[in-house]
Amino acid sequence: MMLEELRNEVYRANMELPQRGLVVYTWGNVSGIDRDKGFVVIKPSGVEYEDLTPENLVIVDMDCKIVEGSMNPSSDTKTHVELYKSFSEIGGIVHTHSPHAVGWAQAGKDIPCYGTTHADYFYGSVPCTRNLTAQEVDEDYELNTGKVIAETFSARKLDPLAVPGVICRSHGPFTWGKNPAKAVYHAVVLEEVAKMAMYTVTVSVDNIGRYLVPLDYRASEAPRYVLDKHYLRKHGPNAYYGQ
Amino acid sequence: MMLEELRNEVYRANMELPQRGLVVYTWGNVSGIDRDKGFVVIKPSGVEYEDLTPENLVIVDMDCKIVEGSMNPSSDTKTHVELYKSFSEIGGIVHTHSPHAVGWAQAGKDIPCYGTTHADYFYGSVPCTRNLTAQEVDEDYELNTGKVIAETFSARKLDPLAVPGVICRSHGPFTWGKNPAKAVYHAVVLEEVAKMAMYTVTVSVDNIGRYLVPLDYRASEAPRYVLDKHYLRKHGPNAYYGQ
Amino acid sequence: MMLEELRNEVYRANMELPQRGLVVYTWGNVSGIDRDKGFVVIKPSGVEYEDLTPENLVIVDMDCKIVEGSMNPSSDTKTHVELYKSFSEIGGIVHTHSPHAVGWAQAGKDIPCYGTTHADYFYGSVPCTRNLTAQEVDEDYELNTGKVIAETFSARKLDPLAVPGVICRSHGPFTWGKNPAKAVYHAVVLEEVAKMAMYTVTVSVDNIGRYLVPLDYRASEAPRYVLDKHYLRKHGPNAYYGQ
Amino acid sequence: MMLEELRNEVYRANMELPQRGLVVYTWGNVSGIDRDKGFVVIKPSGVEYEDLTPENLVIVDMDCKIVEGSMNPSSDTKTHVELYKSFSEIGGIVHTHSPHAVGWAQAGKDIPCYGTTHADYFYGSVPCTRNLTAQEVDEDYELNTGKVIAETFSARKLDPLAVPGVICRSHGPFTWGKNPAKAVYHAVVLEEVAKMAMYTVTVSVDNIGRYLVPLDYRASEAPRYVLDKHYLRKHGPNAYYGQ
Repeated sequence: MMLEELRNEVYRANMELPQRGLVVYTWGNVSGIDRDKGFVVIKPSGVEYEDLTPENLVIVDMDCKIVEGSMNPSSDTKTHVELYKSFSEIGGIVHTHSPHAVGWAQAGKDIPCYGTTHADYFYGSVPCTRNLTAQEVDEDYELNTGKVIAETFSARKLDPLAVPGVICRSHGPFTWGKNPAKAVYHAVVLEEVAKMAMYTVTVSVDNIGRYLVPLDYRASEAPRYVLDKHYLRKHGPNAYYGQ
Repeated sequence: MMLEELRNEVYRANMELPQRGLVVYTWGNVSGIDRDKGFVVIKPSGVEYEDLTPENLVIVDMDCKIVEGSMNPSSDTKTHVELYKSFSEIGGIVHTHSPHAVGWAQAGKDIPCYGTTHADYFYGSVPCTRNLTAQEVDEDYELNTGKVIAETFSARKLDPLAVPGVICRSHGPFTWGKNPAKAVYHAVVLEEVAKMAMYTVTVSVDNIGRYLVPLDYRASEAPRYVLDKHYLRKHGPNAYYGQ
Repeated sequence: MMLEELRNEVYRANMELPQRGLVVYTWGNVSGIDRDKGFVVIKPSGVEYEDLTPENLVIVDMDCKIVEGSMNPSSDTKTHVELYKSFSEIGGIVHTHSPHAVGWAQAGKDIPCYGTTHADYFYGSVPCTRNLTAQEVDEDYELNTGKVIAETFSARKLDPLAVPGVICRSHGPFTWGKNPAKAVYHAVVLEEVAKMAMYTVTVSVDNIGRYLVPLDYRASEAPRYVLDKHYLRKHGPNAYYGQ
Repeated sequence: MMLEELRNEVYRANMELPQRGLVVYTWGNVSGIDRDKGFVVIKPSGVEYEDLTPENLVIVDMDCKIVEGSMNPSSDTKTHVELYKSFSEIGGIVHTHSPHAVGWAQAGKDIPCYGTTHADYFYGSVPCTRNLTAQEVDEDYELNTGKVIAETFSARKLDPLAVPGVICRSHGPFTWGKNPAKAVYHAVVLEEVAKMAMYTVTVSVDNIGRYLVPLDYRASEAPRYVLDKHYLRKHGPNAYYGQ
């Protein structure tokens, strides 16, 4: 069997989704890539987590052709592969329907960077994509989901390592990272900051029902220098968080 | 003892309600039908889940007469039987008071189809029935609850297999499916999408307190072609989700 | 040791509070009364639930004098005793700071009877008391808390068995029942319907920020005949819920 | 190894954070001080709770120099030490990103003292600091975070033992107490009252979308004499709560 180590990584990352409370039933999937071989290991479609094993994960190539495995890969496979093509530095991808992130996605709003919990991992708002057009859905829904994510990052000049996630409008979150475990970490963080941002909106009202935090697209958020400080004390050459 | 296999199915489906966090105390019930015999297996009324066994489930006929069992059937039995009569393709029914679904029911609002999590299982809004009239309540409350559900589906031309659930105004959700396990699955999904829809409303506000997602009865929702895509990749002849 | 059976009942009822997730730390207490002897068994003040035993419960008489026990009784003892004096048919009382009920209490609002989950146990709104005056607080805070609850029921002509609970303004819920276990049951129900009512308010908004459910004091709520039906199918001579 | 007893206290207090559900991953830290020696025991930076031991805690002096320990101390160490210098009576400090407290912090609002749960432990609003200036962030972010907390208490003439916590704007809560265990207790209470206050705001709306509880900075809150009563029955010479 090929790519045993990566299979184990992707297996453990998939199993972490229900353990962390991020998925109901089979509503999520994790993949990992071997950049040298150009192969992606991904969860099979519709398989319960309790039935998942490293062995029944599916390996596909960069054309989404099955290289090894007897099951169908995740129905979101084309989205994963497109993201690996667009974001050359990432090694793992997660898709979930975690409820607070979905709340923002269904509202069609970026998750604003209201504070340091967010800024520690996402350097600015978590972007919400546009809806796909009818033609894009009809033509190739999953492929075009990946393309629209890449378009969002490109149009807004975002670095996918500094903003390791997105919410797809009317759908839900994708996150990524250097490897599958980091991608899951970012999925947990994204759900947590989506929840905190919802709480922030809820309590930021004044007595006549106006909201006092920025709610518009790309609104100014918490002071940029505070966000810079938090992001940069965890990331980059001068980071001093951790060991 | 009759219908042993169906008893086991209905027993397991009932026990899943507290395991999935859908019920407090005895606030829920599951039934299953044997269409050939015209018999319905249903939870006894007011019995704690820890005291439930396949043996103490009650079997009633299509006139709600007890065929087998020493306990009273669920007080909602007439609603279940009426739904089996109206929706000829369903094999299991669930009633709960899951809190987010109840929130929408008490507000008298359909749960809008804001996104793909919803569209994967419910092809459009989850309808909220009208209130029963005083006469309907007085005459036969539980029977008329079933009739009003059927009326809602008929008036709106909804297919009960494509929209496998409803919220009864001022009351709570009923869901159904091909069998009791599927009906429970839909009860879990309904509560989850009710929660996500509430989060969507909460964050969709603008700074002067207007809500940016459709909140009116049968409002337009997420793009129909996206919902079609998600529903149809899971259901129907061209479905490609799963194995 | 006196009243061994009642001690065990009150002990079990107290232990159910953390098991049901109703209390943090020591923020709750249950008592039970022996009407013949005129003695009340109550939790000692500030004792952790893990250190609670039937033996360290405190017995007081109707003047709140300690009859048996080496610890101080709950600081809320006078409120409990006053309620036993005012509501002659109740046998157990619970006080908690369960968060959704506290939310309504801190808002100074009755919990409206928005639906059947509520009506199954509380025949109409759960009333919110007025605030105590400065003089009432200064004179005897805990005694007057009981008196203000009784005043609320008397002024609104409420039957404490049909409305087995109250929320004290700026404070939190008290519930009661025929015995300590029933009082805990009502504490669980009250928290659950307080949560559902909050969800109802959250989703009942229209697109310009108006709320569509009644939010004013003693507002009309769900149709009275529906609430009557649900309350009366569980309670009274013609009840048909349960075995 | 130095300060073995304090190490154990700080270790147990740190471990309580994930047990009480206050932290995700490594998002929190507890310290304790030995006032005689002038040494602070604190969590090492970025270490998972499952890898924490009394032995790998770090001891620093009042200049934040490592006295014992092979790991880097928490990146928030300077904030802790500054608070120990400013608040001479405290013995333990906790920092978390608990979500409801963060919600208020990100909204830049004090947590109003809406009721007795809050008043039992915090004598008035939990203050929200101002944002640090760009210069303060640039100069020494963690040190100045401590200074701004102290400035907030000094400017508002607050007693840090009567108000044992703060929320830092755009960031999150710090709490403290006579020892590390009490500081954790206050972190739990702060999150719980932040949640209750959010629920209060949510349900205090009227039908045209106005909010009926005070939402402005230092607004008047629940009657002061009720809050006094609750705080003073638990604290000070005439306290009568507990044993």
